[in-house]
Amino acid sequence: MSFNSRWIHHDGSPLYVDNLAPASGDEVTIRVRVPRELKPEHVVVRTIHDGEPKIIRAEIERTTSIETWWHAQLPIHNKRSHYRWGFAGGNVGYGWLTAIGWLDYDCTDAHDFAISTATKAPEWASTSVVYQVFPDRFATSGRITDVPAWCEKREWTQRPDGRSVHTPREYFGGDLWAAADKLEHLKELGANVIYFTPFFPGKSTHRYDASTFEHVDPLLGGDDALIALSDKAHSMGIRVMGDITLNHTGVEHEWFLKAKEGHPVFSSFYTFNLSFQHGYACWLGVRDLPKLKYTDDALYDTFITGPDSVIRKWLQAPFSLDGWRVDVANMSGRQDDVDLTHQVARATRVTMEQEGDKLLIAEHFHDAGPDLDGDGWHGAMNYSAFMKPMWSWIVGESFDRDWLGMPNRVPSTTGRQMVSSIQSFAARMPWRSYNSSWSLLDSHDTARIRSVAGGQARHHAAAAMLMTLPGTPMIFAGDEIGATGLWGEDSRTTFPWDNKSQWDLETFAVYKDLIALRKSSEAIIQGGLRWIVVQDDLVVYLREAKTETLLIAAARAASKATLDMSQFGYAKSQPILGNARAAEGALLTVDFDEPGFAIWSME
Amino acid sequence: MSFNSRWIHHDGSPLYVDNLAPASGDEVTIRVRVPRELKPEHVVVRTIHDGEPKIIRAEIERTTSIETWWHAQLPIHNKRSHYRWGFAGGNVGYGWLTAIGWLDYDCTDAHDFAISTATKAPEWASTSVVYQVFPDRFATSGRITDVPAWCEKREWTQRPDGRSVHTPREYFGGDLWAAADKLEHLKELGANVIYFTPFFPGKSTHRYDASTFEHVDPLLGGDDALIALSDKAHSMGIRVMGDITLNHTGVEHEWFLKAKEGHPVFSSFYTFNLSFQHGYACWLGVRDLPKLKYTDDALYDTFITGPDSVIRKWLQAPFSLDGWRVDVANMSGRQDDVDLTHQVARATRVTMEQEGDKLLIAEHFHDAGPDLDGDGWHGAMNYSAFMKPMWSWIVGESFDRDWLGMPNRVPSTTGRQMVSSIQSFAARMPWRSYNSSWSLLDSHDTARIRSVAGGQARHHAAAAMLMTLPGTPMIFAGDEIGATGLWGEDSRTTFPWDNKSQWDLETFAVYKDLIALRKSSEAIIQGGLRWIVVQDDLVVYLREAKTETLLIAAARAASKATLDMSQFGYAKSQPILGNARAAEGALLTVDFDEPGFAIWSME
Repeated sequence: MSFNSRWIHHDGSPLYVDNLAPASGDEVTIRVRVPRELKPEHVVVRTIHDGEPKIIRAEIERTTSIETWWHAQLPIHNKRSHYRWGFAGGNVGYGWLTAIGWLDYDCTDAHDFAISTATKAPEWASTSVVYQVFPDRFATSGRITDVPAWCEKREWTQRPDGRSVHTPREYFGGDLWAAADKLEHLKELGANVIYFTPFFPGKSTHRYDASTFEHVDPLLGGDDALIALSDKAHSMGIRVMGDITLNHTGVEHEWFLKAKEGHPVFSSFYTFNLSFQHGYACWLGVRDLPKLKYTDDALYDTFITGPDSVIRKWLQAPFSLDGWRVDVANMSGRQDDVDLTHQVARATRVTMEQEGDKLLIAEHFHDAGPDLDGDGWHGAMNYSAFMKPMWSWIVGESFDRDWLGMPNRVPSTTGRQMVSSIQSFAARMPWRSYNSSWSLLDSHDTARIRSVAGGQARHHAAAAMLMTLPGTPMIFAGDEIGATGLWGEDSRTTFPWDNKSQWDLETFAVYKDLIALRKSSEAIIQGGLRWIVVQDDLVVYLREAKTETLLIAAARAASKATLDMSQFGYAKSQPILGNARAAEGALLTVDFDEPGFAIWSME
Repeated sequence: MSFNSRWIHHDGSPLYVDNLAPASGDEVTIRVRVPRELKPEHVVVRTIHDGEPKIIRAEIERTTSIETWWHAQLPIHNKRSHYRWGFAGGNVGYGWLTAIGWLDYDCTDAHDFAISTATKAPEWASTSVVYQVFPDRFATSGRITDVPAWCEKREWTQRPDGRSVHTPREYFGGDLWAAADKLEHLKELGANVIYFTPFFPGKSTHRYDASTFEHVDPLLGGDDALIALSDKAHSMGIRVMGDITLNHTGVEHEWFLKAKEGHPVFSSFYTFNLSFQHGYACWLGVRDLPKLKYTDDALYDTFITGPDSVIRKWLQAPFSLDGWRVDVANMSGRQDDVDLTHQVARATRVTMEQEGDKLLIAEHFHDAGPDLDGDGWHGAMNYSAFMKPMWSWIVGESFDRDWLGMPNRVPSTTGRQMVSSIQSFAARMPWRSYNSSWSLLDSHDTARIRSVAGGQARHHAAAAMLMTLPGTPMIFAGDEIGATGLWGEDSRTTFPWDNKSQWDLETFAVYKDLIALRKSSEAIIQGGLRWIVVQDDLVVYLREAKTETLLIAAARAASKATLDMSQFGYAKSQPILGNARAAEGALLTVDFDEPGFAIWSME
């Protein structure tokens, strides 16, 4: 894998692919750009049809002053059509352009580009900026007075206890009535989707141990509060998403309580086996989280597909959720020798499409690509193809945080290592699944970026990458004002609404600018991606759509690069945002005195 | 991907994995060897359990004068457990050892090592050398006189016409009676499996257009000839394998003839649709080859699983075949949005295991790994992980032959490119599926190696790689005496039994020596593989088992390398076969004046 500043390029974006959601039987025109001085004798596309490779010859479409565009007609036949470009002869040499880049030897299909015949994600998702709210910590109305005994009350101004037996029971009193009052904050920031971690009742404030899916936790204001919030959000143009665990329920969930007693329907939702440690299958052996068994038809009906299913109910009025984020999606339907995860995802997708333009996002901490065929989850929370590579690069030295469950410190990587990792994971999914995935700097499950980056400047560089790389940005509430946190539970800080001295207003301003750009730029919304400078401390990339090109630089330290943008077909650059000094003209010199980012509009 | 002569190493062979076919619930001890001067702070194994990553710490097992062996306990849970090694800290740096080698960034699971809980391939397969026979061209008894009108008779001493309308009808008169008489030749050569391309009747001499699966083509001697051959072969310790097409039948097959007429059972074996070009689904649109539809239960019963199924019948007495090679296995069960290829493979495997120790090998021209989970096909014909990489390396210049359906000449690659390609494909399957796959220099579908290599010396180098790399060698009848052929049909030459002047007796002797070594060497049968010299013109690799190590060098041109084998823990080398000059002592100098190979036993 190499990052040559100027080389043969294709990605799955509309600049190179005429139709990202074709039907079986269609032909899709695909294009590859080749630097003009390269004269391959043969250019082909290799695809697979019912398991058999097929070679299609490409032809020259046009030649510009700097490059030759070749095009080919790709026949769409199977649900997931994969393909790569082959080159031979002339002065290019033999090789394949795959989604991880150029390989000069015959290679497997593992990194082929892919196009899916599945329906598209909702149009609204393409301009979304998601704001993640952990309901107990976001805002409190003081209206909730009936607090159960398991709750350990905390003052709003306290930090969470973090790692202790008290952690899941720490109750700060956030509720949905108050959250509705804070939608103006989202509006000011520019976020247009509010996504809540679970609002079902449980015996914890994270609520991933739901006891029912039938109503909103009264501690959060109950159903009425969600309805009021949903109505208000929609009237303001803000979408609302919920969080559902398809993989397991809590041990006190009403289904499990009945199942334990041999209920004729619910018993078959779980795997009871007295030879197991707890007498039933659970999530990673955790007694409190019995695993759902997707070989059972009634489970699909009750949970996902039926007329009164959980998935369906909350998408319908009066709640009118706009989508679901699926907790532990990577495990859902996977148990021992059974792997039904695609079936679970497809069933959920079908149900949601019946309810309108709904979005379905999978939690997936690792290699999500094979689970993103296009007809199940629209995308994944992109820990692997964005957050983790960025974390290990942005700091510039190794540091001590939770990391892939590894015993070592988070390693410090170079720009090359970061980009290799991003490409490696992104290459395993169709472009539109990548572009529909949620990029994130952190979440309620991780340290906060401010603490990871160790300061404002690198935080802003990371935020710029979040907002300008492919994928829908997701912001964990508080990040936009510089909130800190050293691990998941420690990051679940309350929002200091009444103490503006705790707000980093510079960070807030940077977020607002970046979000405004993110939502309006065709180059970011649907542009292709070319990495053109990859140094240890500095990366520069182009986002290119038919109507607009942006050039983005992100630096983790003082660094410099000089770019002859005429090589890429651009004559002029216009700075938009950021802190790089730039000497312009024929050559664009990107010069950072300290960590940061800069964005130019190119013509 | 890099090939460092001395680096951290693991592969799936028994030297590193205690149990290659564990049961779910087992723990398997796995080991990695680390050069002694490397001192990683952390060594871990990363695996996936029901879709969730799991990190297991490794510990030092022992330290020798040259290396440290770390070991870990890998829990086996799902049908295919995949894993890789992680390293951090100390003087190693951060990185992952995957089946394609060392990656210094977080990567996908695409190249994880894999262990399957499926049953093993038959024990006899591990010491097999397969001899492929195209029945019309191998040997003729003169007993067949009733020749149908479609046959175009040829003299035994003629070459096939090659590419013309006559090609499939050229009849040379080979039969199974005569083949039985030639089993002594296999015995002398050392081959212990005879595999016939189809023996069912059709209207071609390749017989991939079977009209029935109920009896052996009378042109080949009918059922009696196969029974006689099978009996004789078994009495000589030679196994017999057949060739079956699960993907389609001929248009004149009895099932299709009935299906066309609306037969209540057979009609559902095929996909009839008047909007299709020919009114039914066919193999790549070829009218003569209607595709079988594996959503139909009765098809499984009739063809594969039932008590009188085709698959079963020929494995039973009196025919007693020892296994099947499945034609077009890569497409079988794949049609439009349906992908049932694993289900077809598993059904076939289950049936065959019911009939005893039978071997199931898939034809697969490209990326076979994803189809080789372990519980379906035992292995694939290894075009991708052996034949093609070797072809494009052995010659030393590009040449004009059929190549992946590409318009270009076969490219000339370096040793690095060849080894990258071999590793790329082999990495996608469990080690035992790789080791159970059939390596080949050519087949009835390709040019012959003698013509590709352009002479005896490079042919012998290729043969040495065939016999010493992982996988079961398959020899296309005639290769062992230097037969030539420029493409598939041109290679279907008759065997010149009566004209020894056409035999290259030196080549025959080299084959005999290599086969004798292949069948008896534990290092080749089950040893691990380390590439230790990868030059443009020369590759050197170790095959290492607990009881034996071989060092193999293959050169396509004059070349030289000096190896300090003490770095690998070996003090002495004993030449066994080949034409390299070697100066021995502390340093082993491998010196080729011309193309060739050499093999040493190491201690």
